[in-house]
Amino acid sequence: MSEEFLKVAHAAREAAAELAPLPRAPKDRALRAIADALVAHAAELVEANAEDVERARAQGTSESMIDRLRLDEARIGAIAEAVRQVADLPDPVGEVVRGSTLPNGLELRQVRVPLGVIGIIYEGRPNVTVDAAALCLKSGNAVLLRGSSSAYSSNAALVRVMQDALTATQVPAGAVQLVPGQTRESVKELMRARGLVDVLIPRGGASLINSVVEESTVPVIETGVGNCHVYVDAEADLDLAVQILVNSKAQRPSVCNAAETFLVHAGVADAFVPRALRALAEAGVTVHGDERIAGYGEVVPATEDDFRAEYLSLDIAAAVVGSLEEAVAHIRRYGSGHTDAIVTRSQPAARRFVALVDSAAVAVNASTRFTDGGEFGFGAEIGISTQKLHARGPMGLPELTSTKWIYTGEGHLRTSEGTVVAGPACG
Amino acid sequence: MSEEFLKVAHAAREAAAELAPLPRAPKDRALRAIADALVAHAAELVEANAEDVERARAQGTSESMIDRLRLDEARIGAIAEAVRQVADLPDPVGEVVRGSTLPNGLELRQVRVPLGVIGIIYEGRPNVTVDAAALCLKSGNAVLLRGSSSAYSSNAALVRVMQDALTATQVPAGAVQLVPGQTRESVKELMRARGLVDVLIPRGGASLINSVVEESTVPVIETGVGNCHVYVDAEADLDLAVQILVNSKAQRPSVCNAAETFLVHAGVADAFVPRALRALAEAGVTVHGDERIAGYGEVVPATEDDFRAEYLSLDIAAAVVGSLEEAVAHIRRYGSGHTDAIVTRSQPAARRFVALVDSAAVAVNASTRFTDGGEFGFGAEIGISTQKLHARGPMGLPELTSTKWIYTGEGHLRTSEGTVVAGPACG
Repeated sequence: MSEEFLKVAHAAREAAAELAPLPRAPKDRALRAIADALVAHAAELVEANAEDVERARAQGTSESMIDRLRLDEARIGAIAEAVRQVADLPDPVGEVVRGSTLPNGLELRQVRVPLGVIGIIYEGRPNVTVDAAALCLKSGNAVLLRGSSSAYSSNAALVRVMQDALTATQVPAGAVQLVPGQTRESVKELMRARGLVDVLIPRGGASLINSVVEESTVPVIETGVGNCHVYVDAEADLDLAVQILVNSKAQRPSVCNAAETFLVHAGVADAFVPRALRALAEAGVTVHGDERIAGYGEVVPATEDDFRAEYLSLDIAAAVVGSLEEAVAHIRRYGSGHTDAIVTRSQPAARRFVALVDSAAVAVNASTRFTDGGEFGFGAEIGISTQKLHARGPMGLPELTSTKWIYTGEGHLRTSEGTVVAGPACG
Repeated sequence: MSEEFLKVAHAAREAAAELAPLPRAPKDRALRAIADALVAHAAELVEANAEDVERARAQGTSESMIDRLRLDEARIGAIAEAVRQVADLPDPVGEVVRGSTLPNGLELRQVRVPLGVIGIIYEGRPNVTVDAAALCLKSGNAVLLRGSSSAYSSNAALVRVMQDALTATQVPAGAVQLVPGQTRESVKELMRARGLVDVLIPRGGASLINSVVEESTVPVIETGVGNCHVYVDAEADLDLAVQILVNSKAQRPSVCNAAETFLVHAGVADAFVPRALRALAEAGVTVHGDERIAGYGEVVPATEDDFRAEYLSLDIAAAVVGSLEEAVAHIRRYGSGHTDAIVTRSQPAARRFVALVDSAAVAVNASTRFTDGGEFGFGAEIGISTQKLHARGPMGLPELTSTKWIYTGEGHLRTSEGTVVAGPACG
């Protein structure tokens, strides 16, 4: 590992040790100091961002990508406001998760503690730099940020402003750091930093996430790949089904909780599919349908790849299924375990679908778009986990913590005959 | 991957899908059927075990190792009894962890669900084969068992008996399987089976665990390496301290929650160390001390390696420290994050030690030996996690589960202006 990387990682580790025992108040003060500093240094940040924008333009980057990259005073204000909102959230650290007095008198409690050092690997927008830092600080963690090289000047300036703001607070400036170097090597260093980094959270496309999962020796929380399904049951209210389908697909097609496939029970296909095709066409959606769907109208023929695809665009795959069980089998085979919805009036069908679908979230008569930390009332979200260990679904502040068991006795000893309490008198 | 392995893994996956939605009653019936079958087939099991014992003896294995390997009718009875105890435990699956009605009327709940397929890699005793299978079944998971090749005939016979018992129940026999092959290759296959195996739990020595952590693409829960410390504070009750130290070290030195190092505040070293050395010598313990400890009596000089060692024997490292903070720094540097104890009468010292030590368990005026699923009241334990993700400390049945979010609406759609409920009338 490069000396540069080790220096940063060790500094983060030390900062994490200082940060972990801090109560809420100094952490909130630090977050508010960051928010104020971002606003105060807006001009400087816009200037640093202009370098990234200029480079992107010179490289022929699309205007929509450049828009994602761009910072202006209004956007910096919104970023600062989001930091203040994180300060307003309750502190997960110190929460007693379980606790009891054991039969032998030991007082046992399990308490939330920070994870330590969190590595975030992300693409795109520079606001993630600040969002991720704020969520990690609030949960008592140090953070190593590895953003897109296309946003390097912006990210470096944002981190500098945050670190400067921290120096006047009880939170050590080393708690927020950019991983040095813009090459693929710096991502590798993060992935091999077992013992220095406690968890890695990759935020981005499937290929980034897969490569981190494959190569990392640091534990990983997978986020965000969403091949979400809407299943229209034999007993669905079809008016509702059309609206839930269109909303799931088209309300914001570029996000992970947008639907990418719909499945229709054969018993309602005649009534539902023509209406669905019409409504989806009106919403500008291209349907990639199987042969039976194609029998109802003009669609692009669906391949295996379509059923696996996370389009993130105004496209949707579609198939007719013979039963709820067939729908579940399709979802198990092609799904990504993010969110799958059933539309049905039948309580037994809803119960069965919920029991059999093995995904982070299952929706009944609701749009897939609700799988979201904000909608769930978490106040903030670091990503949506599609893995089963540690956190599943939207991750808020508690998901950025671990726990510690604490037990307190008065000389409790374990013997083969049970607990003996060694008072001073017996010494 | 070998066809043999894939066959077993796919069968486990299918069994997991059938097992997941089962409620408690059929799972408990299956566990009781297993317990009965083990007792009924005791003679056959003892015979299979005799092959392993004979082979071990021919290879010159030590008698203590052979004793760990041996099965007799009494031990099989005890194993069956443990399975019945697991049947008596509450089912973690289906527990509602959190739940609320969101402001928009969506009913949201987070429910425990099985992890899916759990791979267990273990050494030593054949009873782990049955214990692990019982805990996995109870928590709704299928299990792939990869035990020590030295116990292969025993494990194969145990799994055969368990599978036969399952065929008469609602739990599919494929839910309990032995990984085929006895080579290192079969461990590798388990570690690369991402997508087929949901989590790997290695149970064994540090080198096994490290190699799994390094090489596995399947998420891993690290268990069991324990370099536990007892810190005797400046304000310790020294009678208590001597007894807690001796109990932590010597009550059962071969287990992960036994103490491997003690640290003494310089302020009480004169009074404490001579008494500690005497008491430890009486308990048959060899002390590996730093220079200051050596000033109080005959000890083996301690090296860096001693402070890192998990002896699992009647040995203990020892050092004098200048302050509580120095003790914490020592523990952070050399510890394994398992269990660390402080002996003190001072409330502020206890509070500070608990806050600063970053381990799965922190004990105050109690032996380190209490970090144990049985002692904590879990009823059963699959291991003690020393990692921070998912589970930390003793792992009972809930730690073998994940969660699923379920939300139920009546046509809930997400719009940029907030939630809209699409009734049939608006269709």
